[in-house]
Amino acid sequence: MKKIILLILDGLGDRPLDYLGGKTPLQAAKKKNINRLASMGMVGLFDPISPGIRPGSDTAHLSILGYDPFKVYTGRGPFEALGLGMDLRPGDIAFRGNFATVDSNMVVLDRRAGRIDKGTDELAKALNIVIDGVEIMVKEGVEHRAGVVFRGAGLSPNVTDVDPHEEGKSILKARALTEDGKKTADIINKFISKSYEILENHPVNKQRKKEGKMPANIIMLRGAGIVPELEGFNKKYGMKGACIVGVPLLSGLCKLAGMDVIKVPGVTGTVNTNMENKIRYAIEATRDYDFILVNIKATDVAGHDGNGKLKKEIIERVDSAIEPFLDNLDKITLMITGDHSTPCSVKDHTGDPLPVLVVTEGIRRDGIDEFDEVSVSRGSLRIRGHDVINILLNYSDRAEKFGA
Amino acid sequence: MKKIILLILDGLGDRPLDYLGGKTPLQAAKKKNINRLASMGMVGLFDPISPGIRPGSDTAHLSILGYDPFKVYTGRGPFEALGLGMDLRPGDIAFRGNFATVDSNMVVLDRRAGRIDKGTDELAKALNIVIDGVEIMVKEGVEHRAGVVFRGAGLSPNVTDVDPHEEGKSILKARALTEDGKKTADIINKFISKSYEILENHPVNKQRKKEGKMPANIIMLRGAGIVPELEGFNKKYGMKGACIVGVPLLSGLCKLAGMDVIKVPGVTGTVNTNMENKIRYAIEATRDYDFILVNIKATDVAGHDGNGKLKKEIIERVDSAIEPFLDNLDKITLMITGDHSTPCSVKDHTGDPLPVLVVTEGIRRDGIDEFDEVSVSRGSLRIRGHDVINILLNYSDRAEKFGA
Repeated sequence: MKKIILLILDGLGDRPLDYLGGKTPLQAAKKKNINRLASMGMVGLFDPISPGIRPGSDTAHLSILGYDPFKVYTGRGPFEALGLGMDLRPGDIAFRGNFATVDSNMVVLDRRAGRIDKGTDELAKALNIVIDGVEIMVKEGVEHRAGVVFRGAGLSPNVTDVDPHEEGKSILKARALTEDGKKTADIINKFISKSYEILENHPVNKQRKKEGKMPANIIMLRGAGIVPELEGFNKKYGMKGACIVGVPLLSGLCKLAGMDVIKVPGVTGTVNTNMENKIRYAIEATRDYDFILVNIKATDVAGHDGNGKLKKEIIERVDSAIEPFLDNLDKITLMITGDHSTPCSVKDHTGDPLPVLVVTEGIRRDGIDEFDEVSVSRGSLRIRGHDVINILLNYSDRAEKFGA
Repeated sequence: MKKIILLILDGLGDRPLDYLGGKTPLQAAKKKNINRLASMGMVGLFDPISPGIRPGSDTAHLSILGYDPFKVYTGRGPFEALGLGMDLRPGDIAFRGNFATVDSNMVVLDRRAGRIDKGTDELAKALNIVIDGVEIMVKEGVEHRAGVVFRGAGLSPNVTDVDPHEEGKSILKARALTEDGKKTADIINKFISKSYEILENHPVNKQRKKEGKMPANIIMLRGAGIVPELEGFNKKYGMKGACIVGVPLLSGLCKLAGMDVIKVPGVTGTVNTNMENKIRYAIEATRDYDFILVNIKATDVAGHDGNGKLKKEIIERVDSAIEPFLDNLDKITLMITGDHSTPCSVKDHTGDPLPVLVVTEGIRRDGIDEFDEVSVSRGSLRIRGHDVINILLNYSDRAEKFGA
């Protein structure tokens, strides 16, 4: 049995760019190590959910880990909250929160409270209250962002957002989308009013006003979702799983699946992340774990920025960082792919298929020695998210025979 | 956001023909415009339902429009009736009917009533009656054909046909296939008897007898199906859809999905159809619609005739007709494929996969510049019916992101 590393280059897939000579960043990049890995194994095209579906990183990773996103995904809140290290339980309702500035008429003056970047830990702590028997937990995130969790009986994610998404407009009242959402909508509205009472004269805001800054005097909620009960990854597949990921959304998701999160120095979830460390730690982690998911976010960041040259450079840095894999294919089954395309020409996720490679010692070689969106279409694989773990189990001698 | 045109060349897929030098009609055809479109986009193979399944035009089109034919298709009757312009409601039971000639012992003398081609409108009108509270609607079709609809409580499509499919045999009694079909079978049998009473001495038939023609003195029913409740196309996909199709079966299907039917002069559903008009109207229709389905039936007709040379010529005419697409790829996302294969060597539909291409400005090019059953297998796509609209939404910048 071999150990498994699944390397997800976030937002990897792209479309042709004129300034790269009609090539995609991956086609344009120098990538001798990735190409060498491709030539030693099997390549093809990959649809994280199904052809044409535009995945989020969260739904794509759920699908890749073998969870049907159409069944378990009910909104971004739970995954964001998990990523902030909040202790969630199945049935909790979680939201994405942001500290904002309102006037006394609840008109939004700044949706990001002047991009507040200090003191939100104290503000969040002050908002950990109980309303009508529902326990409310708030945890600060990056800048004005926060995770908000409701725990109690009779809650539902079927409620509307309160963020008007525009400054100069009043905060909206949460409404129930279905009968079972009424209690939750009511508690949201009470909580928002209460947050103004608590925050308006909080010492952090008194100080901000003194400094001429926007006070973070309210919290807005959106993206309600119920925390799903995922079958534990380790039990589902009979192997011990861990992840090395820079972004809270994905570490939260892996935690929800019961995987361990390995902290790696220098991992930032940005273009400056320390890729070499990620790869080295992943290989070292194979001593303690059977399966390690590694996500490198930088490719996606460059895609969202529409910067094809940067994306190409990042791919070249990845190519250099992954060199150690070449010496470990006797012990490791490696898959490299992405979770969705983020074409620089679109600056957002699309449903275009992604290149994928799987390699280990002794595997078939399908004779394609270029790893890019076009070359791999001549390869062996034409797979979907829910196939990934099965394929990795197979090529690591871990798959159980189904039948006799 | 771009507009979408989906061009279905009915029965497009084929098999090698000796008299075309071992090529399929599509391989043998000169088709510079189609090949140019292929070279500018992505190609591959397409299974309208799933690999090996032999689709009808109706089940294939349902699948292509994103409706699961295994769930919604219960027989051809409803689609034929819709194509005749009959006003159907979900829950109605519809049949394909044909006027026939029987003797007084109910032995079929001519299944097509001497290929009657006049007066069936009057005969059909005379058959609009009520039996046991069930409203029966009959509408004449081409020659001896008619649509028959039963409307009422407690009806079921689970009944046998009454057509013996052979002359010199008696009309069969309809039988219930399941318990819930008893009432419907009973009404069918009463209706058939009643139709003889009404038609035998109808003025149209008196006149026919005078002229030495077979009287259309009975109606036979087959292909019972319940009219399904389809989720409206426009709501399902958030776009306004229309179709340009020559055959009643498909316009009926599109109407059932809530799509508009665009009438185009010179469109016949035969090999002489005016393809140039279809394409021109489709492009013009993008002003008012987001999605236009265009079906060209002629390829299928040639396949059913087993005429590979004609099929090749028709493909060459299509190639010439579609030239205007080349100038509109900045505004239009185009897919070209078929609904099933109709190999000239088989003269009927088969479950062979079909070539497919999708093209628009800025899309990946997978480097295949020949559009035929074999060349496209080196391309990027390996898709099924239910993927089609998702892929088109993706490449027209209309797909909603699922997740974050």
